[in-house]
Amino acid sequence: MKLSSYLKQKKMQVDCWLDELLPAPETKPETIHKAMRYSVMAGGKRIRPILAILSAEMFGAEGEDVKLPACSLELIHTYSLVHDDLPSMDNDDFRRGKPTCHKVFGEAIGILAGDALLTEAFNLLHRCPTPILPSLVREISAAAGSCGMVGGQVLDMLSTGQEIEIEELKTMHRLKTGALISTPLVIGALAAGLSDKDIELVRLFGGHLGLLFQITDDLLDATGDEDELGKPVGRDEEKGKATFVSVLGLTGSRKMAESVLSEALSALAHLPAADEDKRSVMELLAEYLYKRRI
Amino acid sequence: MKLSSYLKQKKMQVDCWLDELLPAPETKPETIHKAMRYSVMAGGKRIRPILAILSAEMFGAEGEDVKLPACSLELIHTYSLVHDDLPSMDNDDFRRGKPTCHKVFGEAIGILAGDALLTEAFNLLHRCPTPILPSLVREISAAAGSCGMVGGQVLDMLSTGQEIEIEELKTMHRLKTGALISTPLVIGALAAGLSDKDIELVRLFGGHLGLLFQITDDLLDATGDEDELGKPVGRDEEKGKATFVSVLGLTGSRKMAESVLSEALSALAHLPAADEDKRSVMELLAEYLYKRRI
Repeated sequence: MKLSSYLKQKKMQVDCWLDELLPAPETKPETIHKAMRYSVMAGGKRIRPILAILSAEMFGAEGEDVKLPACSLELIHTYSLVHDDLPSMDNDDFRRGKPTCHKVFGEAIGILAGDALLTEAFNLLHRCPTPILPSLVREISAAAGSCGMVGGQVLDMLSTGQEIEIEELKTMHRLKTGALISTPLVIGALAAGLSDKDIELVRLFGGHLGLLFQITDDLLDATGDEDELGKPVGRDEEKGKATFVSVLGLTGSRKMAESVLSEALSALAHLPAADEDKRSVMELLAEYLYKRRI
Repeated sequence: MKLSSYLKQKKMQVDCWLDELLPAPETKPETIHKAMRYSVMAGGKRIRPILAILSAEMFGAEGEDVKLPACSLELIHTYSLVHDDLPSMDNDDFRRGKPTCHKVFGEAIGILAGDALLTEAFNLLHRCPTPILPSLVREISAAAGSCGMVGGQVLDMLSTGQEIEIEELKTMHRLKTGALISTPLVIGALAAGLSDKDIELVRLFGGHLGLLFQITDDLLDATGDEDELGKPVGRDEEKGKATFVSVLGLTGSRKMAESVLSEALSALAHLPAADEDKRSVMELLAEYLYKRRI
């Protein structure tokens, strides 16, 4: 199966799901529902939901089985971008080639739209199969919270303008980005009924994949094409952010990406796949994350 | 049973639970966990968790049975205050007699601490009994989200400086405050295993109680004592907020509070209490909300 057609097909699927699951834009109060939709529907690669679908399929479940938690993760990802873009945070005016939520709706609605998306993310989960609901709520809230994504954002902020060690940088990114890349894989494994032991192997693979994603994200900010990315480049350096590029340089970061890719592929080879075709797609996806231009 | 000793005892219980359930202040990253604790432990009457406990007891369950969802609601209430106090929202410097979260930790940490509290609120739920977990997640997320509390805050913001009708004002408060006053009662009923039909009766009573709470809140802002309240008074008028006092005047608001109290007491009398003593405490609590000075 070609990776690009798989990604395209699943992205369309996820876009449909999100459109179906988000409150209609005319739901009252309209302002907040328009702001929520504006941010979620502004595009994005839907990489987190796609990872959940691919994981479910690889371990023997259906993509449809992870519809709700996959969309939950995308809402959480979107809320984090909306809050991250706020003036008192990263102060970004553009995201995915469009004005950011607070530029369109004002700062107060930007904060509230983020809050509402995070809350809606958990609301989606209540209709998941009851036996795996406790695990889903635990995994998703832990990945998103103060010892996950939010904690990573705090470390990111505190390290801005500071010299930091590579291990601190890895911790920051394991929390900030890694958790929400690894969790979709765990969700697919939960939906497929994998054992706790196998789920830990999935989590290990997810950790490598998350790290790889962040290294190439930093590389793209340093060397990417503004038009292709849909956002300004060079913003990390401008803001004095600690990144793999600032700590290891371009060559060092590329080397690290290469070695993390090889760890990821080796971890992937040990996973108990029910569908070998889907394992190959996952392999291609890891390689794509390594080589990606957007 | 005297109401004041009941409230005092349960508040101490809730404070202990919150202290136990919140991540320790030395959990890394320390800044965010200190900010979360600062806001939650700044005081507050714990009225929402106490309502959940009292409801559980009144319908035949134990207070301990609602420990997690009760604390979840208090974290959600706290996050909403932290975000509401931000410069781009209500821009308040004091809350419960102390500097607000963003005044102590900065605006970015204020946003992130709110986000982390909201996420932690759902994390707490995953250890609730699995059979009622779907209902708990549904009730709490609906009460807090864009068609509940957040939606009410949007309406509040949009109506500031505008003339509004009494029905719009009631809708705004049903969402903004009512939902989080009514939900603890529903949670107690769920923990006690009440039927869907009885839960709707509980919700009806909760609606009256929430409305009563908000009318007296508006009255307190207009006529209360700053030292007793621990926050400046007269802020609603200063900001041009739509309140019961601005729409109905002081006398009209007091009359309305009286009639809502009597509706609440009549609804309460129809609830299937397993413990009549606790029904009496609930009655006293409704009367206290009507007469309260803080």
